[in-house]
Amino acid sequence: MSPLVSVKEAGDARLGDYVQLREVNLRRMLEEEHGLFIAEGDKVIRRAADAGYEPRSFLLAPRWLDSLADVLEKWPEAPVYVVTEELAEQVTGFHVHRGALASYRRQPAPELDTLLTGRRIAIFDDIVDHTNVGAGFRAAAAMGVDAVLITPTCADPLYRRSIKVSMGTVFQIPWTRLTSWPDPLDLLKDHGFVSAALALTDDSITLDELTARQDEKLALIFGTEGHGLKPHVLERADLTVKIPMAGGVDSLNVASSAAVAFYATRP
Amino acid sequence: MSPLVSVKEAGDARLGDYVQLREVNLRRMLEEEHGLFIAEGDKVIRRAADAGYEPRSFLLAPRWLDSLADVLEKWPEAPVYVVTEELAEQVTGFHVHRGALASYRRQPAPELDTLLTGRRIAIFDDIVDHTNVGAGFRAAAAMGVDAVLITPTCADPLYRRSIKVSMGTVFQIPWTRLTSWPDPLDLLKDHGFVSAALALTDDSITLDELTARQDEKLALIFGTEGHGLKPHVLERADLTVKIPMAGGVDSLNVASSAAVAFYATRP
Repeated sequence: MSPLVSVKEAGDARLGDYVQLREVNLRRMLEEEHGLFIAEGDKVIRRAADAGYEPRSFLLAPRWLDSLADVLEKWPEAPVYVVTEELAEQVTGFHVHRGALASYRRQPAPELDTLLTGRRIAIFDDIVDHTNVGAGFRAAAAMGVDAVLITPTCADPLYRRSIKVSMGTVFQIPWTRLTSWPDPLDLLKDHGFVSAALALTDDSITLDELTARQDEKLALIFGTEGHGLKPHVLERADLTVKIPMAGGVDSLNVASSAAVAFYATRP
Repeated sequence: MSPLVSVKEAGDARLGDYVQLREVNLRRMLEEEHGLFIAEGDKVIRRAADAGYEPRSFLLAPRWLDSLADVLEKWPEAPVYVVTEELAEQVTGFHVHRGALASYRRQPAPELDTLLTGRRIAIFDDIVDHTNVGAGFRAAAAMGVDAVLITPTCADPLYRRSIKVSMGTVFQIPWTRLTSWPDPLDLLKDHGFVSAALALTDDSITLDELTARQDEKLALIFGTEGHGLKPHVLERADLTVKIPMAGGVDSLNVASSAAVAFYATRP
């Protein structure tokens, strides 16, 4: 069993992994420096453990000790900081709805070419909203997409809110962050992938036309909220594809677009 | 031109429509009592005006007076409260990103049977998150759904955040709030609609099987986040329909599900 440590002071340095969870910029620096991410809620904590991530510590209200006992037992070296919900709120800066947090070690990102073995890949380019990133991963996992690539400026899939909205699917679907963009499209092409950028352009084919092509390997590219994919990305993609819109509406939310495109191109 | 009124005090009673925009419960009471809703940002303000909603007033930083001049001119009786961005923040309780707000009169909800003339209807049952409501409306409008019905407990499509996420499509697609549920399914049936509840049950057909039926009129029902549609709703629906999931994922986000189902059932 992990050592239970009762903590009474919000300023206790041992709780350093959990401070100010809503301060996105501060968290980005802190999580990068220490190579950690935060899982919130018993289900997400369990999914991270099941996926083989290694906990640095847990921060739990007493009522969670029993129901998470099997997870805690599996990691006897990770301390369990037992706190009141009030103290958790002081440390994290918000009301921790489910009273259960864990800090996990990040793992090295997989090499890109190890992710190019499947039939369908999703590429999320510069999606800046963690909710959209999480919902996009959830849709990719639910629709059987084999891997996700995110571009250098895309929001962090392991940010607490992304994980939560993804329902933990960020632990399940293989993914990596590209170190350059859009150059890796050449490598994808070498591996037989046809790249299709979702965008409304003059030469866009419809999603129906895309599925009719029955390309064996497909990389679907989804662009940033608001302005969509940049021209130099569209130029490098093999195809641009549109989901036909009614009523003068110009686009779907990016996670909804992804769900529709993943559904339409299912094997 | 509307009268320009420079306001210097956050406590000024004339700004009463705009107070504490992030306090959901307070806003619900206030907006219901006064029959108003708040539009945020110049695009949304313009779309509400174009859709025929009548403004009660505007709250603008000076830089918006020119670009919104045509809207303001159209409504000479609606006062324009001109404030600094700081004062706007004090009144509303948050940083108003685009520095432009308007308060509009709500319109009477259309009668249910006037909405039953099209081919496809979406029913959002007890969706509690304003982001999901907004994204659901956006998907419905983008995919050419003819009308939206929301159940008595569903979150407000005219709450500021719903409007914003919907990209103003809540002004465009006809909708009403049902006063009871699920009894109105009988009226839909009388009008020739087949009702299909999106849910994973033992007797769910797949979305492919649904589209193969080619029902002439279809009412698609989407349930609350987390627990999904209640058993007594599933019992009353003609069909339950599932979107096949991979990798043990149990569902999509409700707005993504709606986008997929609307896309798959497009005429």
